[in-house]
Amino acid sequence: MSTEKNYLNIAINSKKAANILKTIPDEKRCQLLIRIHDALKDNALKIKNANDIDLKQSIEQNFSSSLIKRLDLFKGDKFDVMLKGIKEVIALQDPTGKLLLKRQLDDNLTLYKKTVPIGSLLVIFESRPEVIANIVSLSLKSGNACILKGGKESINTFKVMADIINTTISSSFDELNVPMAAVQLIETRDDVNQLLAMDGIIDLVVPRGSNALVKRIKDNTKIPVLGHADGICSIYADNHISQSINQAKKIIIDAKTNYPAGCNAVETLLINKHLKNWDELLKALINEKVTVHLMPDVKLEFLKLNPSFEDNQFVVDVNQDIEFDQEFLSFDIAVKFVDNVNDAIDHINHHGSKHTDCILTEDEQVADFFLKSIESCSVYWNCSTRFADGFRYGFGTEVGISTSKIHARGPVGLDGLVTYQYQIIGKGQIVGDYVGSGGSREFNHKDLEI
Amino acid sequence: MSTEKNYLNIAINSKKAANILKTIPDEKRCQLLIRIHDALKDNALKIKNANDIDLKQSIEQNFSSSLIKRLDLFKGDKFDVMLKGIKEVIALQDPTGKLLLKRQLDDNLTLYKKTVPIGSLLVIFESRPEVIANIVSLSLKSGNACILKGGKESINTFKVMADIINTTISSSFDELNVPMAAVQLIETRDDVNQLLAMDGIIDLVVPRGSNALVKRIKDNTKIPVLGHADGICSIYADNHISQSINQAKKIIIDAKTNYPAGCNAVETLLINKHLKNWDELLKALINEKVTVHLMPDVKLEFLKLNPSFEDNQFVVDVNQDIEFDQEFLSFDIAVKFVDNVNDAIDHINHHGSKHTDCILTEDEQVADFFLKSIESCSVYWNCSTRFADGFRYGFGTEVGISTSKIHARGPVGLDGLVTYQYQIIGKGQIVGDYVGSGGSREFNHKDLEI
Repeated sequence: MSTEKNYLNIAINSKKAANILKTIPDEKRCQLLIRIHDALKDNALKIKNANDIDLKQSIEQNFSSSLIKRLDLFKGDKFDVMLKGIKEVIALQDPTGKLLLKRQLDDNLTLYKKTVPIGSLLVIFESRPEVIANIVSLSLKSGNACILKGGKESINTFKVMADIINTTISSSFDELNVPMAAVQLIETRDDVNQLLAMDGIIDLVVPRGSNALVKRIKDNTKIPVLGHADGICSIYADNHISQSINQAKKIIIDAKTNYPAGCNAVETLLINKHLKNWDELLKALINEKVTVHLMPDVKLEFLKLNPSFEDNQFVVDVNQDIEFDQEFLSFDIAVKFVDNVNDAIDHINHHGSKHTDCILTEDEQVADFFLKSIESCSVYWNCSTRFADGFRYGFGTEVGISTSKIHARGPVGLDGLVTYQYQIIGKGQIVGDYVGSGGSREFNHKDLEI
Repeated sequence: MSTEKNYLNIAINSKKAANILKTIPDEKRCQLLIRIHDALKDNALKIKNANDIDLKQSIEQNFSSSLIKRLDLFKGDKFDVMLKGIKEVIALQDPTGKLLLKRQLDDNLTLYKKTVPIGSLLVIFESRPEVIANIVSLSLKSGNACILKGGKESINTFKVMADIINTTISSSFDELNVPMAAVQLIETRDDVNQLLAMDGIIDLVVPRGSNALVKRIKDNTKIPVLGHADGICSIYADNHISQSINQAKKIIIDAKTNYPAGCNAVETLLINKHLKNWDELLKALINEKVTVHLMPDVKLEFLKLNPSFEDNQFVVDVNQDIEFDQEFLSFDIAVKFVDNVNDAIDHINHHGSKHTDCILTEDEQVADFFLKSIESCSVYWNCSTRFADGFRYGFGTEVGISTSKIHARGPVGLDGLVTYQYQIIGKGQIVGDYVGSGGSREFNHKDLEI
């Protein structure tokens, strides 16, 4: 009971801090971020010492080298890039208080639609300790309070950094008025589970990490989750690409091999069965050491055209449909024939994960139909699926990629951390004076310039 | 198992229809709505006969007179208003395909952000049969497929209307291409429960009815729900209203008595304890036969100033805090003293339902602070909470009122039934050519005029 109370306090304090933060102007929130930047910079040695402990323990515990690489905050220019990231967020436009609508309802009765912070965010991330600086900047810049949970491998680094941030917030309180609870830390997975039950207090959960993490969180909360579990992206090679078959090869190879672990890497290649020289696409992939998982009819036709590939290690069978529902995240791609663009659309809308899909075609009408029909957050014509990214979209910094249809979709920038509110400023008007509610006054509904 | 399959088919067919609807231009969707309008008009007698059966059965079953009133589709000009509503929706601007952003990422590589339909909607409403016409118009106009479930009291009316709508859709198919499954009907509560489990196929649930209905649905689905359970709206009477005490009375009485069953009616009155003549507000309410539920200190002070109200039937005690968490929906209001605006804000953000709240004050700075601090979807200064309504906001028609912070908030018009999608049109660009991913090209991120 006493621990339960404690979790409730974390959530309630976060919400209270959020409601204060909302009233603090961007200028003060940015001043605080500058101080946090400086404090992290001044305490680099202290942070490095903590990070060394985490690294040592991870090596002792035989963690994977990729995890250890992610954990190392001082590898190359990572720490400086982290600090630079805070300054970049400071320089972004204030996402709150933007006027979206200003409408005169009647004389001296005006409706405003304005962006406002979402409130209290629960942000859960894995081993990369620099994410804390990124999340704190994004939250404070957008006027939201955050509750942070990092990976247990980075706990020492994370605690020292959090301590520096909290000390900065509290020592600036008299001047900048940001409450301590604007940034709170939790340490265990059990803490997270308790907070995931606090719908109605916590407004949004942002998981940044593996598919397994995102899935676990989505399955265990009623709070809206901003994120994506899978990235099953498809490319459809239409039959109208005779002039651009080399361009098609280039795009498919980039989408598959540029960074196969990325959620925007392509996993499925759908080939129009009327396309000439379609086997060129597969040979180009195999040439880049990509394993092509071929449906029976694709394999049959491919080997008929290229008998020398009979025992090629990069040519394997695909089990009907099943492999189209999984993310390889490796040098693998599943390949299927489709009859036409409709067939491709049906496959993608059914098997895809609503992330990013692409059509390769020279036919504008077919492309337009594809762009309109695909349900995914991002849909492309003649370029790599790897463009699905906040930096590449020009959003400055990225909160994550969302495959939700509700609220923020696709690469999510600072705008994904605000919602809107309607405000009316009147001079004593009552509804009873208007038509439909007992009176005779009419609304004039005149949109005013913003 | 076979029934389960059936429900899956309803959901999948709805999604397939949605993906076709998305590609059909507004002009054709509106043509279909005109035909539906005409078919309902031409079959008025058939609908009336079915409605008479529902009315007869409801009377036999001793349903409440208010339910029977809601059920009667031919009372007054209700049927004509319903038909007019279809025409009004037709006349609204197409909410889909709106360009929200157009950004040049590089030469011949352009990012578009466009509004698109949400997909498949599950709409659950209670006894009012005219809602079917309203929902079908809103869904088709916004390019969404819908699955409809009406109240069991109106089942005969509802089935005849749905049959007319479906016949119109199918007989127009050759010309207008809207698939039959764009509008589907389900009949029982069990049907609803099965479909509420189909997250990942159905995109949004819209319950239109009582708090109990909305609560039950929210508790039983992982699909996003557009709606609100409670409408606990508050008015805070600041101490700076000496010049406008009469205006304050007028607003409070309108907010309470104009339509107490409305979700935007006021339920809580917070009075700044430094306000002079505050008891005038209570006497004005009592004068309108509103029962004032007073906290102990409010009651004590009120009777000290007005001993004649000692045994007044409209003055009752309030149990500390509990009554501030419920919606009266009647001629009742809970009243509490607060120390200052901060105290009022804390109360509202804690006990309110994030619907609509109002400050009465002459002090602009206090008002501004209140507007910024309140979490609710709508927040007002010096006018009645009853203005929270799609018609009054000039949204034409209303899907409902949403108290969610994510996606649509407040009164929701046609815009609440669309989301957005990013599209990129390229000429073969690959990410590997750009900085940060192995290449040297820079993005130019130039926003183009929309």
